[in-house]
Amino acid sequence: MHVEELETPALVIDLDVMEQNLGRMADYCRQWGLRLRPHSKTHKSPWLAKQQVESGARGLTVAKIGEAEVMVEAGLDDLLLAYPVFGEPKARRLGEVARKARLTVALDSEDSARWVSRAAGSHTIDILVEVDFGMRRCGLPPGEEPVRLAKAIQRLPGLRFEGLLFYPGNIHPDLEGSSERLEELNQRLSRQLEDFRGAGLEAETVSGGSTPSAFHSHRIGGLTEIRPGTYIFNDRNTIEWGVCKQEQCALSILTTVVSTGVGGQAIVDGGSKTFSSDPLAAGTQGGYGIVKAHPGVEFFRMNEEHGYLKLPAETKLELGRPLQIIPNHACVAVNLHERAWGVRQGRVVKEWEIAARGKIR
Amino acid sequence: MHVEELETPALVIDLDVMEQNLGRMADYCRQWGLRLRPHSKTHKSPWLAKQQVESGARGLTVAKIGEAEVMVEAGLDDLLLAYPVFGEPKARRLGEVARKARLTVALDSEDSARWVSRAAGSHTIDILVEVDFGMRRCGLPPGEEPVRLAKAIQRLPGLRFEGLLFYPGNIHPDLEGSSERLEELNQRLSRQLEDFRGAGLEAETVSGGSTPSAFHSHRIGGLTEIRPGTYIFNDRNTIEWGVCKQEQCALSILTTVVSTGVGGQAIVDGGSKTFSSDPLAAGTQGGYGIVKAHPGVEFFRMNEEHGYLKLPAETKLELGRPLQIIPNHACVAVNLHERAWGVRQGRVVKEWEIAARGKIR
Repeated sequence: MHVEELETPALVIDLDVMEQNLGRMADYCRQWGLRLRPHSKTHKSPWLAKQQVESGARGLTVAKIGEAEVMVEAGLDDLLLAYPVFGEPKARRLGEVARKARLTVALDSEDSARWVSRAAGSHTIDILVEVDFGMRRCGLPPGEEPVRLAKAIQRLPGLRFEGLLFYPGNIHPDLEGSSERLEELNQRLSRQLEDFRGAGLEAETVSGGSTPSAFHSHRIGGLTEIRPGTYIFNDRNTIEWGVCKQEQCALSILTTVVSTGVGGQAIVDGGSKTFSSDPLAAGTQGGYGIVKAHPGVEFFRMNEEHGYLKLPAETKLELGRPLQIIPNHACVAVNLHERAWGVRQGRVVKEWEIAARGKIR
Repeated sequence: MHVEELETPALVIDLDVMEQNLGRMADYCRQWGLRLRPHSKTHKSPWLAKQQVESGARGLTVAKIGEAEVMVEAGLDDLLLAYPVFGEPKARRLGEVARKARLTVALDSEDSARWVSRAAGSHTIDILVEVDFGMRRCGLPPGEEPVRLAKAIQRLPGLRFEGLLFYPGNIHPDLEGSSERLEELNQRLSRQLEDFRGAGLEAETVSGGSTPSAFHSHRIGGLTEIRPGTYIFNDRNTIEWGVCKQEQCALSILTTVVSTGVGGQAIVDGGSKTFSSDPLAAGTQGGYGIVKAHPGVEFFRMNEEHGYLKLPAETKLELGRPLQIIPNHACVAVNLHERAWGVRQGRVVKEWEIAARGKIR
């Protein structure tokens, strides 16, 4: 079947492009001796997680226990839960995961560490202390607090201090002054590792790495592991950040033109429930995606099930016409779809369930 | 179980408030002789659809055939698909729905009408012609085109011209000059109904009505039916539009504080994959929701699984603390959840599957 014969809207992955993306990142990590632990939040599919492992990834990152459960069920056996855990129900579920896989958890509080300790039971869970090097996301401020938490972790049954985790958005390629920020990050990180050593703690794992910063990871001193997610598919953001070219974008959403009643406009059968309403994070442009093969067409507005395309004067998009659109942000778009279709050279060759979609707990 | 003992993030519906919302709209429609056909896109649940019917709704509106399939499967037997249909797979599925329920379809092109005719087989499908009275969504420009389409519909086997459908966003309560717009809408609508009559066509159904405009529906001459969705729950938008008070908002998302490492900030365990990244559509404020019981706390930023709260100087939100947050837009938030929990007086009394969630085809 040709891709444009799929019922729409449909999440479409070009498998050739995807495999090139996987290979490129794996090669980079091999070259620099970095462990690759891709974030599965982008694809939410055990089938793709296995491809990442086969192409060189050491294990996987997940954000929620529900994602870990899906991956473990499918036989993935080395997981990093990059999310703090709280409460009895989550501790119970985490304990089940720890019984079936090598498990690492990242956290930034003793409260959460106690819940993970409870989950561990007779098993050992490795802990990464999350440190905030200036992005103001999760993480403790660098210095004494992470050391204090690491010591507390060593005292808790079933836990082992494994190292530190941070989010290196500081060296995001579209930020001005990136090299100064990189310098500053390196200083802070090296000081933190010193602080750990001063307390007799060795950070065996130093985990960073998002897709936009991934190919700069070798410039961060002491890094042992990266956790990129989006690189498997790429999206409008990574194109706009200059991290990839449009032809390296493996993901698109196939839509159909369903209304042309209003002049100069075409409406496709996907909106915020198909693409997500994430604005473009890269750069200053608006809009919700790139309409492939129609560079002059602007995806300027959405309702829940409608995508609005502004047409240049000479362009006509007839009713029923299929259009492939690259979304702003792959991860949130994938999460809205139950299934995906893999294509090679325009032919549909594979269909799979996005099994960890919607696993927000 | 008390609501705050639920594992988070969890979609929580206050059933007492919801029933009041249902009753209020049903009473309004009874008072003015309007048919109530609620849009199920907001709740995506057959259980709630049935409550709407029991409290006075005539039938339901759906946006996608996948939603219709879920509703028909659950025994709902009078559906309006307010979405144009294209292509063989959709025609086949629509035919199945038409065999099981009274079906009306809204569309704005003869191309789509032909697909619906194909779906009808030996059954009859009622058709509403969608007209654009200035909102530039779907719909034909008023005048001759809708008449031409209505005539084409009458010639197609299995179809019956039932009337017209439009989206009355023109009289949105937050738009300045709403009464001038209402006047203009009334003129256009009455001219269109004249045009139909002039061609020997009687529009038995004139379908309008979204939640923000719902309680102004009696001011639109000739309207027979309204299709509000959000009114069942309400959200930050409807509060900001002045359509309801905060205590009339039945829906919230229960979250847990999972990180307080960064000063002046608390992070909860839900972000754009839990709330959606829909900005506030009403007014000019930013932010992603109302943190109940903490009016000074600002939900100012999101990542996929993180919600960032800015805390006033004197406020501390301790780790593990449950927080209920009203999202900007209920419909897109509900679509991200697999299940919902119903509460009365703070006690969990019911759990249900959001069965039509993610049915984008």
